[in-house]
Amino acid sequence: MGLVVQKYGGSSVADAEGIKRVAKRIVEAKKNGHQVVVVVSAMGDTTDELIDLAEQVSPMPSGREFDMLLTAGERISMALLAMAIKNLGHSAQSFTGSQAGVITDSVHNKARIIDVTPGRIRTALDEGNIAIVAGFQGVSQDKKDITTLGRGGSDTTAVALAAALDAEVCEIYTDVDGVFTADPRVVKKARKIDWIAFEDMLELAASGSKVLLHRCVEYARRYNIPIHVRSSFSGHEGTWVSSAPIEQGDKPVEQAIISGVAHDTSEAKVTVVGVPDKPGEAAAIFRTISDAEINIDMIVQNVSAASTGLTDISFTLPKAEGRKAIDALEKNRSGIGFDSLRYDDQIGKISLVGAGMKTNPGVTADFFKALADAGVNIELISTSEIRISVVTRADDVNEAVRAVHSAFGLDSDSDEAVVYGGTGR
Amino acid sequence: MGLVVQKYGGSSVADAEGIKRVAKRIVEAKKNGHQVVVVVSAMGDTTDELIDLAEQVSPMPSGREFDMLLTAGERISMALLAMAIKNLGHSAQSFTGSQAGVITDSVHNKARIIDVTPGRIRTALDEGNIAIVAGFQGVSQDKKDITTLGRGGSDTTAVALAAALDAEVCEIYTDVDGVFTADPRVVKKARKIDWIAFEDMLELAASGSKVLLHRCVEYARRYNIPIHVRSSFSGHEGTWVSSAPIEQGDKPVEQAIISGVAHDTSEAKVTVVGVPDKPGEAAAIFRTISDAEINIDMIVQNVSAASTGLTDISFTLPKAEGRKAIDALEKNRSGIGFDSLRYDDQIGKISLVGAGMKTNPGVTADFFKALADAGVNIELISTSEIRISVVTRADDVNEAVRAVHSAFGLDSDSDEAVVYGGTGR
Repeated sequence: MGLVVQKYGGSSVADAEGIKRVAKRIVEAKKNGHQVVVVVSAMGDTTDELIDLAEQVSPMPSGREFDMLLTAGERISMALLAMAIKNLGHSAQSFTGSQAGVITDSVHNKARIIDVTPGRIRTALDEGNIAIVAGFQGVSQDKKDITTLGRGGSDTTAVALAAALDAEVCEIYTDVDGVFTADPRVVKKARKIDWIAFEDMLELAASGSKVLLHRCVEYARRYNIPIHVRSSFSGHEGTWVSSAPIEQGDKPVEQAIISGVAHDTSEAKVTVVGVPDKPGEAAAIFRTISDAEINIDMIVQNVSAASTGLTDISFTLPKAEGRKAIDALEKNRSGIGFDSLRYDDQIGKISLVGAGMKTNPGVTADFFKALADAGVNIELISTSEIRISVVTRADDVNEAVRAVHSAFGLDSDSDEAVVYGGTGR
Repeated sequence: MGLVVQKYGGSSVADAEGIKRVAKRIVEAKKNGHQVVVVVSAMGDTTDELIDLAEQVSPMPSGREFDMLLTAGERISMALLAMAIKNLGHSAQSFTGSQAGVITDSVHNKARIIDVTPGRIRTALDEGNIAIVAGFQGVSQDKKDITTLGRGGSDTTAVALAAALDAEVCEIYTDVDGVFTADPRVVKKARKIDWIAFEDMLELAASGSKVLLHRCVEYARRYNIPIHVRSSFSGHEGTWVSSAPIEQGDKPVEQAIISGVAHDTSEAKVTVVGVPDKPGEAAAIFRTISDAEINIDMIVQNVSAASTGLTDISFTLPKAEGRKAIDALEKNRSGIGFDSLRYDDQIGKISLVGAGMKTNPGVTADFFKALADAGVNIELISTSEIRISVVTRADDVNEAVRAVHSAFGLDSDSDEAVVYGGTGR
């Protein structure tokens, strides 16, 4: 039996009862012969309450102090969890990110892990302890200041520790049963995925699936750490995310052609209208955007109208960044050269993800047919080797997701998954 | 202008408004040209709420984890305070006890400071920052674990930092105007003391005065750091505690003969009845008590009754330790040799403190007369060079305090303080 890293999110440790329930599950793993490292998030709404306090004392809190403040949340949950485990007769020690050796850069509020030196964790394990580590936080390499890793940071902490400790698996406990073929709140017949490859999971995460964040999956793939996403409220097997299928008893797991359908309504679309169709124009636009530190998602350039020599360039970005992007472009209008800007925040994105896609051209056609049959109009298209995404009206998103999910045989009561043969059909 | 250390207690930073008010006061000191180090406690009821959570997950939380938990409280208040100061246009950085170099022993929940290495604080100050330090906490020298200093620990943090940084003064901000000649809730006419010597303050603290704790005053005396106890809710001068009177404008401050009257109803009395009056008996009793790690206060041995060769030994101790003391003595009854034990938790202690006492024998007589005039019966007496304490019925305490306060001319509307001449009167 090897070492397992378990991560419990805020909803799993929302109150004293939750903490005691989680403690029992951790002790179970220890009793099964594992060395156990637990990464824990702040309890329930703690982080939101702290943010609220910060806003009351300062409209623009400094990054360093904001991180100092927020890290109090995990300090509380991890100490309580260690106490609860001891109360079950097992020894446990809690460690801050700094004590656990989570070394980051100095970018407060969204620091990146640059090294993990888990000497104290290793010692605690060797002495027979369960080690509890604060998620979401680290210490900066140069200034020794406390940092936080940004949204979903606890998952990244767990995977990084699993890599540094050469863990057998990183278990991510959450309030859902695993990764689904679509958001179960939208698609009632969505199915839990038993196994999914890192690449497909990366595309799902990038396309709006909220269960695992992109950065965490990326980290796991780089160090080849299998992730097991599962519910802390049940004993069910969840979803395995790894490079190759994991054997599950006598049930062989095959790689699906289509992994799932993701959707995202958190983005807006900016269209730069009347751009001269000459080299360097796109570069000027996206240099302006990147100088404003705005992350963009899809980019589409329309075919130039030969008569005018002008074209339109559209891109999508998080709604929260919309104002900033428009301001930056307007400010640089003369430098770039365009007629006007259009901003549209009533869009949605639907993505179909699957490793089988690259060898099955029919997938794309079936995807567009499903959307057409559902009467959904397509505004933008973007593809990768294993993903195809379209932008539609926000109002159409739920209907589009259901239609695509059903057309590809992903519905839970569908007997026949769609099978592609050869290089098309 | 030199360096000042300011300490703000939980009631001063109970909510966002309190934090903003305190921030203004800190900035005021900075504007006056001081280098400012601020030690802050957890907000209002935070610590109690955390203790409550701990009790919900474990009836006997481990010391290490309990300290990890509680230190989240100061982390929140100090980060918020730093944000509030920055919002006023001044630079501030917050530091945990560990970051501030507060090195302690490993006794969790009541660690002692063994060294202070404030290198990071000094750097922050030299760079023009206001340094905010978490009170009540440190890091253990051997294991590098987070520790807490026990009740009143933030005051000790402040004094220890003031000593290590060679501060001009340590200002302790609280919710009262300073140290009074008696508890103002009991004696309406109690007066604020302008200046009091370390020694007198030590005796008052040991006798039940709650404003400053004994350990903090002891530390200040050892390093000769003047303490200024004052209210964070007003601009009034408070009470100076130092080795020699501080000049205050043109008003010379003289050392009073009597500093004040303290009282304490948190103790109980144990009487060991029928102890053989021979060498080694008291030693056996108090070895038993100290082996049980119980701190005792007063000890009185009655005169032996010649006829029996037996005597009684009484001592007082915190009520919370009563059960433990009785159990320890009963268990060792045969080893010690006594007839019976009596336990009485309906007692109170009244103490008169003043440096003038040692050269004025009349003080003792006047003290007893005041108590007798008020009809208060005395059960035990104990004295030091500058203090005289008596134990009475708990019901008599308030009346006794008022009578003594008035008899020694301490009442605020009394024109004439009692004056002693020569070596008595």
